[in-house]
Amino acid sequence: METMRWKEDGRLELLDQTGLPHEVVYLTCSSYQDVAGAIRRLAVRGAPAIGAAAAYGLVLAAEAIKEPAREDFLLRLQAAAGELAATRPTAVNLQWALDRLLQKLRSKPNEEVPALRAALLEEAHAVYREDVAGNVKIGNYGSELVPFGARILTHCNAGALATAGYGTALGVIRAAHGAGKQVIVYAGETRPLLQGTRLTAWELVQEGIPVTLITDNMAGYLMAREKVDLVLVGADRIAANGDVANKIGTYSLAVLAGKHGLPFYVAAPVSTVDLKLTSGAEIPIEERAPAEVTHLAGRALAPEGVRVWNPAFDVTPHRLVTAVITDRGVVYPPYRENLRKVAGK
Amino acid sequence: METMRWKEDGRLELLDQTGLPHEVVYLTCSSYQDVAGAIRRLAVRGAPAIGAAAAYGLVLAAEAIKEPAREDFLLRLQAAAGELAATRPTAVNLQWALDRLLQKLRSKPNEEVPALRAALLEEAHAVYREDVAGNVKIGNYGSELVPFGARILTHCNAGALATAGYGTALGVIRAAHGAGKQVIVYAGETRPLLQGTRLTAWELVQEGIPVTLITDNMAGYLMAREKVDLVLVGADRIAANGDVANKIGTYSLAVLAGKHGLPFYVAAPVSTVDLKLTSGAEIPIEERAPAEVTHLAGRALAPEGVRVWNPAFDVTPHRLVTAVITDRGVVYPPYRENLRKVAGK
Repeated sequence: METMRWKEDGRLELLDQTGLPHEVVYLTCSSYQDVAGAIRRLAVRGAPAIGAAAAYGLVLAAEAIKEPAREDFLLRLQAAAGELAATRPTAVNLQWALDRLLQKLRSKPNEEVPALRAALLEEAHAVYREDVAGNVKIGNYGSELVPFGARILTHCNAGALATAGYGTALGVIRAAHGAGKQVIVYAGETRPLLQGTRLTAWELVQEGIPVTLITDNMAGYLMAREKVDLVLVGADRIAANGDVANKIGTYSLAVLAGKHGLPFYVAAPVSTVDLKLTSGAEIPIEERAPAEVTHLAGRALAPEGVRVWNPAFDVTPHRLVTAVITDRGVVYPPYRENLRKVAGK
Repeated sequence: METMRWKEDGRLELLDQTGLPHEVVYLTCSSYQDVAGAIRRLAVRGAPAIGAAAAYGLVLAAEAIKEPAREDFLLRLQAAAGELAATRPTAVNLQWALDRLLQKLRSKPNEEVPALRAALLEEAHAVYREDVAGNVKIGNYGSELVPFGARILTHCNAGALATAGYGTALGVIRAAHGAGKQVIVYAGETRPLLQGTRLTAWELVQEGIPVTLITDNMAGYLMAREKVDLVLVGADRIAANGDVANKIGTYSLAVLAGKHGLPFYVAAPVSTVDLKLTSGAEIPIEERAPAEVTHLAGRALAPEGVRVWNPAFDVTPHRLVTAVITDRGVVYPPYRENLRKVAGK
C-alpha cells in the first residue's frame, strides 16, 4: 500500500488515512491547497510522510504559478511554502522538506522558471526516494538492537503509512521480523485518533507480524506483568539535546519504561533532528479540536459542556531515551554531541 | 440521578449506565438473573454499586424461592448468591455484600422463611444506606486533604454512579467543592468503555464542577506541564498490604504521579478492603471481550485479525499510594497495620 504516488500527469495521489482500515481511497491533489488541506485533516500524517507530501505540494504550487519572471515566481513559491508549513507546527520534516526544495532553487541562480519547476519535481522525488532508503537503513541499524523473540511495545503509527514507505519504528520491526527474530508487537491504540488501531495494527496484520492491540492506559500494567522487552516509537521533532516530540502518550510510555528498566528507543531519520532548538521546551506543540476527543465518527461520546485539552504531541526528555535510531546509525547519549555528529552539516 | 432504586412492588430499578450520557433509561429487574445480567454487561458498575445491586438481587432471589423449609431455602439462596458473585471477579464489594446478607440470616437461626425474606430486604436497604452515608464520610475526610484551588486528576468513574450515591473519589471532590475549595478536575476518558467521558464528566458538568476531559495517554504530559496537584481514584479491591486493584490505567497514573512528586490518593469504603488477601498479586483481574477495544457502539475500529489484551483492572503497589481515604478515616502507611485497624473485625 503506497502512502502517496506522483502521477505522470502532474498530480499527487494520497492514501486517505482517515478512512483506514476499512476504506482504501486515494485522494487526488491537483493544487498545493489540496495538499495543505489533506495534511491539515490528517488524510496524510506522520512526520516523514507530511514532509514528502509537502514537497510534492510545492511542485503543484510551482505548476500553478504563471509568473514568467524568476523573482516573482520565487516570491509566490515562498508564500505557498509558508502556507504548507503552517498546516502543522510540530513535525519538523515538513519545514525541512520545503526548505530543501527552496534551497535547491537558490543553488540554481541562472535557471529560468521552467527549469526551476523541473528541479523542484526532481528534488521532491529525491525527498521521497531518500525517505524510503533512509527507513530501510533505520530498520537495519535498529534491528541490531532487537533481541530474538523481543516483545515490542509501539505507539501511534511510525510505519510505512507515516513515511514515504517502510516506516521508522515499524521499519525496525519489519527488519527484525525479516531477519527471523520472531518479534511480537503490542500496539497502543493511540487515542484520540486511534492510529495504533487503524494503521499500525493494519500494517502489521498485512505483513503477518503478530500484533496485539491494547488501550493506551494498559501499557503500565503490561510492563508490570513483564510482557514487554522494549519500547520503540517514532518522532516528530528531536531537539539538539535529544528531547523528543512525538505523538501524545509517548512521554508516559517513556516514564513507564524507565520505571520498569526497559529500553526506550526512538526511530527517526536525521531530517527529524532540529539542531536549531536547544531543548524540547522550544518545540511548538499542536493542540487540536476538542471534537477529536468528544466525538468518534461523528458520534458524541461526551456530555455537552465539558472542556477538553487535546495536545497532539508531547515532549520526552532525553534522559528517558535509551538511543535514537537514525538513517546514519544509532545515536546514544550524550545527545547534544552525538546528534550533531550525525545531523550537523 | 439515582444509580438504583428499590420499588415498593418488590422490583429493582437500575439506571442503565451503558446508555449515558445520552440516554437516561432505568432497567427493571424482577429476578436475580436480571440483576446478574445487568452487572455482567455493566449496566450497573463501580465496586460499591454492584455490591448494593447484588444485595437487592439476593432479595429478588429470595422472593422467587418457593421452598417453605428454612434449610432448603438457604441452600437455594446460597446458589443464587454464588451466581451473583461470579458475575465479576475483581471488585470485592460484590462478595462482601452477599456475605453480609447471608451472615444476617445465619444470625437468625430460629426464623422461618418469610421473616428471613424480610430480614434480607432490610439488610439490603442497610447496605445501600450505609454506602451513601459512608461516601459522605469519605468525602469529608478526603476534603481535608485537598488544598484550595487544587487541580485533581481522576480516572474512570468513582462517583455517585459507581456507588449507592455521592461517590468515593467524586465524593471527595463534591465535598471539597461544597466546602468552597474551588477545585478543578481533569477526567481521564478511561478506555475502553469511556467511563470518564460518559459518566464522570457528566456527573461533574451536572454539579457545576469545572471538568476538563483528556485521553488517558495525556496524563503524563499534563503532569509534566504542572497542571495537576493530586491524583484521586476509587478502588475495586484493596489487599491487606495496601495494594490497590482499580480500573485499568490506574497503575500508570500512580507511576506518573510518583515520578512528578504528586500525591496519589485512593478513596474507598472499608468494604473494599480484603484483609484475606496478603497482597495485590492474589486479586483476580477480570479480562473482558476484545470487542470492547476493537469496536465502539457496534462499529469496528480495528482491522480483522488483530489480537487484543483487555484486562479491566490493574494493581497498584502500595508503595505508590500516598493514602487510602476510607469511611473510617484516612489511612497512611504502613498499610498492613493501619488497614487492619480500620477494616479488621
